Amino acid sequence: MSDRPSTAILDRLSAIVGPSGLVTGEELRSRPAAWTRPAEPCAALALVRPRDTEETSRVMTACAEASVTIVPRGGATGLVDGILCAPDQITLSTERMTTIEPADPLAMTMVAGSGATIEAVQDAARNAGLFFPLDLGARGSATVGGTISTNAGGLRVLRYGMMRDIVLGLEAVLADGTVVSSMRPLIKNNTGLDLKQLFLGTEGTLGIVTRAVLRLRPEPVGYATALVGCPGVDEGARLLRAAQAAFQGRVSSFEGLWPDFYRLMTKPGRATPPLKPDYAFYAIIEMECLPEETDRFVDVLDRLMGEGTVLDAALASSEDQRQAMWRIRDRVENMNADGLVRAFDVSVPLDRMDGYVRGALARLNAIPDCRAVVYGHIGDNNLHWNTTRLDAAGNAAIDAAIYEPLAELKGSVSAEHGIGLEKRGKLPLSRSPAELATMRLVKRALDPDNRLNPGKIF
Amino acid sequence: MSDRPSTAILDRLSAIVGPSGLVTGEELRSRPAAWTRPAEPCAALALVRPRDTEETSRVMTACAEASVTIVPRGGATGLVDGILCAPDQITLSTERMTTIEPADPLAMTMVAGSGATIEAVQDAARNAGLFFPLDLGARGSATVGGTISTNAGGLRVLRYGMMRDIVLGLEAVLADGTVVSSMRPLIKNNTGLDLKQLFLGTEGTLGIVTRAVLRLRPEPVGYATALVGCPGVDEGARLLRAAQAAFQGRVSSFEGLWPDFYRLMTKPGRATPPLKPDYAFYAIIEMECLPEETDRFVDVLDRLMGEGTVLDAALASSEDQRQAMWRIRDRVENMNADGLVRAFDVSVPLDRMDGYVRGALARLNAIPDCRAVVYGHIGDNNLHWNTTRLDAAGNAAIDAAIYEPLAELKGSVSAEHGIGLEKRGKLPLSRSPAELATMRLVKRALDPDNRLNPGKIF
Repeated sequence: MSDRPSTAILDRLSAIVGPSGLVTGEELRSRPAAWTRPAEPCAALALVRPRDTEETSRVMTACAEASVTIVPRGGATGLVDGILCAPDQITLSTERMTTIEPADPLAMTMVAGSGATIEAVQDAARNAGLFFPLDLGARGSATVGGTISTNAGGLRVLRYGMMRDIVLGLEAVLADGTVVSSMRPLIKNNTGLDLKQLFLGTEGTLGIVTRAVLRLRPEPVGYATALVGCPGVDEGARLLRAAQAAFQGRVSSFEGLWPDFYRLMTKPGRATPPLKPDYAFYAIIEMECLPEETDRFVDVLDRLMGEGTVLDAALASSEDQRQAMWRIRDRVENMNADGLVRAFDVSVPLDRMDGYVRGALARLNAIPDCRAVVYGHIGDNNLHWNTTRLDAAGNAAIDAAIYEPLAELKGSVSAEHGIGLEKRGKLPLSRSPAELATMRLVKRALDPDNRLNPGKIF
Repeated sequence: MSDRPSTAILDRLSAIVGPSGLVTGEELRSRPAAWTRPAEPCAALALVRPRDTEETSRVMTACAEASVTIVPRGGATGLVDGILCAPDQITLSTERMTTIEPADPLAMTMVAGSGATIEAVQDAARNAGLFFPLDLGARGSATVGGTISTNAGGLRVLRYGMMRDIVLGLEAVLADGTVVSSMRPLIKNNTGLDLKQLFLGTEGTLGIVTRAVLRLRPEPVGYATALVGCPGVDEGARLLRAAQAAFQGRVSSFEGLWPDFYRLMTKPGRATPPLKPDYAFYAIIEMECLPEETDRFVDVLDRLMGEGTVLDAALASSEDQRQAMWRIRDRVENMNADGLVRAFDVSVPLDRMDGYVRGALARLNAIPDCRAVVYGHIGDNNLHWNTTRLDAAGNAAIDAAIYEPLAELKGSVSAEHGIGLEKRGKLPLSRSPAELATMRLVKRALDPDNRLNPGKIF
């Protein structure tokens, strides 16, 4: 790329967003390329920070006319290199589009700019006496636009769904600068293709989200939380079903912990194990309920213990105990400390999970020097693996053990993280040639010159 | 159209689906053109009934090669003329694709053919000890494929969502015969564009759905139901919010009844009015809860009566009383008997509903000889109007009073019925030129020759 066109596009972008809206040089290099590459500087030609939808549209038009491609950038906490840039690309950050309009207490909705963080949205909802249910570890950095583009899941999917279920409407800018505004705060709106779905989970390849209408909920009134030991994951699934029935769908989390994961997280100095270390399967189950409903939860556990579905259970009797229980699930740094540094995010239908985990563990254990643990939001079909890092051949064998069985089991190579650059090679295990071809038809229709996040997903 | 090509395509279709799979002549004319036109015979060249996805694909390929266009037909209970045919079109009925596979009790999912009725799916779920939540009056005829194509709503949207929220995966045939199979029974699956969204609510214009994976729920344990009188719809919305908070999201219905509707439905001989006829707003509120939770519901009502948000309330104390309360909402034949035969289905954000209804009623009341009532699933933003039928000018004035304010209020000209042919002219009130252009981009990408349900929606 010659100097001249790049100078011309930078001048033009600067004229649109103002000098403070364009970041280049050392200031740009001080930003990481991606969350997974903290020491690698962002390689883009420039970072452009439009203030609103209209400036975003003008930036897109300018880039289209200059034949420059665009990589959208949200909170930069994604896990699949979806924001990685080449030196001839412009990265468009939503960081100045942070406006959060006051929540509407009757309609229980809120309008937020795509650059607002999840934490800021949660706080604004709470200040209005309401509740924004999406939650994830990166809440302080992850943005509305980023979580839309990746259809983020997180900690409360079982009860409240993913970002797709929370976004009522949105505004997006297409590759040619067209503004598609679908900002209606409606639960019901059957007027043809639901356009917001084009931008949910497509990782910025079809448009740049600038604003969204979000659905809020009443604040939870309290929790009942238990750690249980079961003979296997199928018995865990039966506990989940019994609890959903007894509490009419108010189970908010159901996290499966296989024994090697449980033992790793409860090593001396890490956490006091509430249960014996030798059950075949553990689960943390939490439901949203009033304090007086805890007795009913105990009844469910007693009944299932009587029939052998649950072998033992520890109920959190205080918020401190609840937090301690959750730390057994959440302290991922314990895995890093034990050398289990490669993380995987897959999904498997619940009725096939037992066979999948057994088969994959057998293959993993047969790989020399490989260690692996498995856990996850299994109520949402979501499993996470953490494994040791080996040489290239060893890592490929680990990948094969974890990913290859998924195609046959109707699982997914990405439950919640997305595809980005990292999982492109695995996508055909989860998507048929006809599905990929149909996705490409839509991509070509909306972005015929492949200007938006080219090379990501496909 | 000459005889020769039509004979050729009929022979070819008959070879694909067998002679019993092709319906023509008197047998075809005995079928109605649409639910709204019971006396008008189906005008299509032929009705073709493939037995499975593969036959559907071969039918589509044959029609593409013969340049014949296709109108998909489900249970033929739609309300917007979405299945109306021209004499040179083939209508493709899903009526032989009725297979329902056994529900999976662990994963709580079920696979059903697109021709299976909603009632058959409900029954199959119940037989497995589970619950299929979508419900609507036409349950005995409406099909899985039809409710996907229209993104049907119905009676339990507030709690369980619309068909979009119930379908985990589906299989569809594109205009060129390509089979796009996305039948994974997964809650989480972030692997690019969520292809099923292309076929949900697009009324058969992008593909023909042949099968689907459905998400099931635990069966409800019981109900608490009340009819309340309020000073206005805003107070009704406050009751809804208080009940959602107290019952953690388990309100399953919140139906608003404005006074003229309430008085019409409780005329002597129709229903005994549980409350005085002169409140400004009535609501039926129902939640899924255990019998012992009714006290908490009474506490909520008492508190809101103390502050004037609720003026009076009648609680159903038996299943008979509950059914009687629901008949005040559901006996739509009472409106027809009173000459209120034109039905409308719109949506309006809850915080703007009071102003919208007041404004529209003032305009309607100013039209000579016009009478109108209004009610609806207002917890889902959904309002239904029923009005008298006048002459063309009068009907146009009624349409204007009901539809025109929606654009400004970010409402929708169709909450749940869809667009079909009937509402095409109103679509620009709910969708901007950029939104319509984007929908057309996707339509052209998937069906470049406009073979699938041409003329519907757009």
